Amino acid sequence: MSQSIEQEFKNLLKEQASYEEAIGLMAWDLRTKAPKRAVDQRSEVIGVLSQKVHEIQTSEKMKEYLDALTDASTDPIVNKAVEEARETYERTVKVPVEEYKAYVTLQSKAESIWAEAKESNDFKGFQPYLEKLVSYNRRFADYWGYDHHKYDALLHNYEPGVTVEVLDQVFPKVRKALTELLEQINQATDQPDPSLLKGHFPKDKQEAFSYEILEHMGYNFEAGRLDETVHPFAIGLNSNDVRVTTKYDEKDFRTAVFGTIHEGGHALYEQNIDPALAFTPLATGTSMGIHESQSLFWENLVARSKPFWQNHYELFKRHAPDRFSSISLEDFYRAVNEVKPSMIRIEADELTYSLHIMIRYELEKALIGGEIEVKDLPGLWNEKMRDYLGVTPQNDSEGILQDIHWSGGDFGYFPSYSLGYMYAAQLHHTMKQEISFNDVIQKGDFKQIQQWLTERIHRFGKMKKPLEIINDVTGEGLNPDYLVSYLTNKYQEIYKL
Amino acid sequence: MSQSIEQEFKNLLKEQASYEEAIGLMAWDLRTKAPKRAVDQRSEVIGVLSQKVHEIQTSEKMKEYLDALTDASTDPIVNKAVEEARETYERTVKVPVEEYKAYVTLQSKAESIWAEAKESNDFKGFQPYLEKLVSYNRRFADYWGYDHHKYDALLHNYEPGVTVEVLDQVFPKVRKALTELLEQINQATDQPDPSLLKGHFPKDKQEAFSYEILEHMGYNFEAGRLDETVHPFAIGLNSNDVRVTTKYDEKDFRTAVFGTIHEGGHALYEQNIDPALAFTPLATGTSMGIHESQSLFWENLVARSKPFWQNHYELFKRHAPDRFSSISLEDFYRAVNEVKPSMIRIEADELTYSLHIMIRYELEKALIGGEIEVKDLPGLWNEKMRDYLGVTPQNDSEGILQDIHWSGGDFGYFPSYSLGYMYAAQLHHTMKQEISFNDVIQKGDFKQIQQWLTERIHRFGKMKKPLEIINDVTGEGLNPDYLVSYLTNKYQEIYKL
Repeated sequence: MSQSIEQEFKNLLKEQASYEEAIGLMAWDLRTKAPKRAVDQRSEVIGVLSQKVHEIQTSEKMKEYLDALTDASTDPIVNKAVEEARETYERTVKVPVEEYKAYVTLQSKAESIWAEAKESNDFKGFQPYLEKLVSYNRRFADYWGYDHHKYDALLHNYEPGVTVEVLDQVFPKVRKALTELLEQINQATDQPDPSLLKGHFPKDKQEAFSYEILEHMGYNFEAGRLDETVHPFAIGLNSNDVRVTTKYDEKDFRTAVFGTIHEGGHALYEQNIDPALAFTPLATGTSMGIHESQSLFWENLVARSKPFWQNHYELFKRHAPDRFSSISLEDFYRAVNEVKPSMIRIEADELTYSLHIMIRYELEKALIGGEIEVKDLPGLWNEKMRDYLGVTPQNDSEGILQDIHWSGGDFGYFPSYSLGYMYAAQLHHTMKQEISFNDVIQKGDFKQIQQWLTERIHRFGKMKKPLEIINDVTGEGLNPDYLVSYLTNKYQEIYKL
Repeated sequence: MSQSIEQEFKNLLKEQASYEEAIGLMAWDLRTKAPKRAVDQRSEVIGVLSQKVHEIQTSEKMKEYLDALTDASTDPIVNKAVEEARETYERTVKVPVEEYKAYVTLQSKAESIWAEAKESNDFKGFQPYLEKLVSYNRRFADYWGYDHHKYDALLHNYEPGVTVEVLDQVFPKVRKALTELLEQINQATDQPDPSLLKGHFPKDKQEAFSYEILEHMGYNFEAGRLDETVHPFAIGLNSNDVRVTTKYDEKDFRTAVFGTIHEGGHALYEQNIDPALAFTPLATGTSMGIHESQSLFWENLVARSKPFWQNHYELFKRHAPDRFSSISLEDFYRAVNEVKPSMIRIEADELTYSLHIMIRYELEKALIGGEIEVKDLPGLWNEKMRDYLGVTPQNDSEGILQDIHWSGGDFGYFPSYSLGYMYAAQLHHTMKQEISFNDVIQKGDFKQIQQWLTERIHRFGKMKKPLEIINDVTGEGLNPDYLVSYLTNKYQEIYKL
């Protein structure tokens, strides 16, 4: 095998990764710093660079390198990069260029239409766009191919290896357990009191607390920063520049505290990827589900646990109003873990959250499979909300229209959120066998947790597929029982069932 | 002429401008927000995108478009863009690619060597690098060609139309007038008292004042922002995103106040370029000298004038320590205009500043022309400082090593600073004939000033060459008499000569 072809391939990947890094910075800037009027031209610039990425991914040169290099290198990173680039090449060239371009135009149009429709509670206004988006995605699924269900072709974009067959096994099991648990919780006589948590939390104090917690988690501020934004996110430009954003609600500290920790979990993943993967498509988290497992691990398994607050409650009080000095740790802990079915997914507690996801999953699957149509969605949504969560949206804005994802054509993404929960609980189970989890957290020795996750997950980037990681770390495939038993144990104690 | 070639040409320019905009944002970020460890990989990404810009500028396609389109369009913007792109093409292809690459590597190395040499006062450590940089630039000048003096070929990069012949006429004249004036000032019996200006100026108050002044100047915060940095700059990513940076010294308010106004002057230029020039190489200031004329106009002609402080002194006092309430406007005005020869160019007052520039100019010209060699520089520098300014550097760090420019190979740049002063005074002269300058400033109606400059200068971007602008606006070519008479009148009054 010619050394020079390998080098040329690496150079091409580096060019692609450079555009992606520049796009990443522009995206971060648009959501945190850019002045209002910068948006239009900057979006065009992002469009030009995205077009270059697409050209590289589908170029003749790329094809040539991939054909020459498949399994040909002595360097495992090159072999994996070839695999990854080949998959991107093959999926991308299957979609006719003109159709792809029309789809990109539709996406950007649909997003603003969705925003208006949500604002004015007008599903009918969004319906024709959503219909087109669905029909594109059905066609894309056909181009990409699948073994059993059309929806598998879309799931593959976010969680390769996870199929309808898998989800149809695990979701009903989890749903049954959660709805039963929810039933018991609703009937519990000793309920937590979330009104305890009210108060005025000045932004600067919340900010100081957020910085401290990120430091404790092992987030490296020499390779990142924390900023404010409207819709919080974390972004890894490269492993030495991974930025966290958060939002401060002066009436509710939970938004920033749990939000920062959640994004911090994503950021730890990206900060700890092996630097040897830099400038290849492997230098990022392996899937949406595994990424979400990291953020949820920190947000819920760590930061909503009792040992966490045994360690952090004193620090919290220093940044909170005086009245917290008379609230016991136990009452505080129960209050931040209140379970309450609600309309909005992103405001849901850790127990009901997965039920929201299952509703999306069932609708998406049926929609892509052609069993239902877009016009049926509002009715079906409300019905399922009633069945699974016992609440009924007052209107489509707080119902079917609440999330942005579909307006960008992101079908197959939602299950990642729930898979992330299941992975997190499964990793938690394994971790507890290897280190004394509660002691470590109570002592605030989060470095040990971070190192455990880095050693087993983070450093690999995309060198391993999601289920390969889960198998290697936990010794078995995806198993939803860990999530069920984690939630059952935790909430039986909190609700004294 | 084929419409489609014109469109293809525009697309290529748009691609180039997109890379440049992304590079600009990455540069801004590195100097304001980026975490420490981001620097290395980000520099590589900037390198990849810069390489693409270079490839486009010198591509076969570009050549083809230029040949097809010269003077062929009905659109004057396209014709100018062709002219501009042709000049870049021709100058760039004249330098052999391998030589250019070696030079880029040398530049980035030399910059860190210079920083070390300045830190440790070791000119000898920098000398071999500077020798190489000089010899590259002598060769580049030969590649590019010139009529009379080799240095003209370099001047052309920063101030097309201005030559050694021009500078050798104006500089001695200005120098003679300024040194005579300086002589009188040094002997004046009634000196301003800069110790009045001492105090503690909290950063947040300086920041608030900086925001207010930028607003007053007509800087549009919907198309820009203000941040803190070590070496202040303004950067125009496009006319809707022009960012200003400044530095707050809590012991000396002048750094931030005059620095912000200076960078604000640059920013107004970039914010007010005709949007029709977007995505072409014409969408920026026409030259370094004209750019500097805008920043210096605001910093000195406006903000160091008495009417400015008649209007702004009360506002200033609200952001300054109480003791300023007992300092008269007159004493304050005289103190901020103290003339005092000093070692460091960037700390020089508006009168002695040009003398620093002339020293650089004379040395650069002789160096590129081969009349002196690098090893002669420290001695010649100190000699000229003594002759022109009456002060002698204690060491090379505060002498020949003080400025970064040469370490990046920027020969021919320094004269722009002084040309900017001369342009500013000449524009000031014309403006005063058209609007009642002092009244307008005293009333704080800066919008009128900004509009005057936008109408005559800003909006054209690179549609006009620097001397074309000066001629069109003032009715004559570069004339240094306006600077001399402005400074003479101003300082005769301040020093009661």
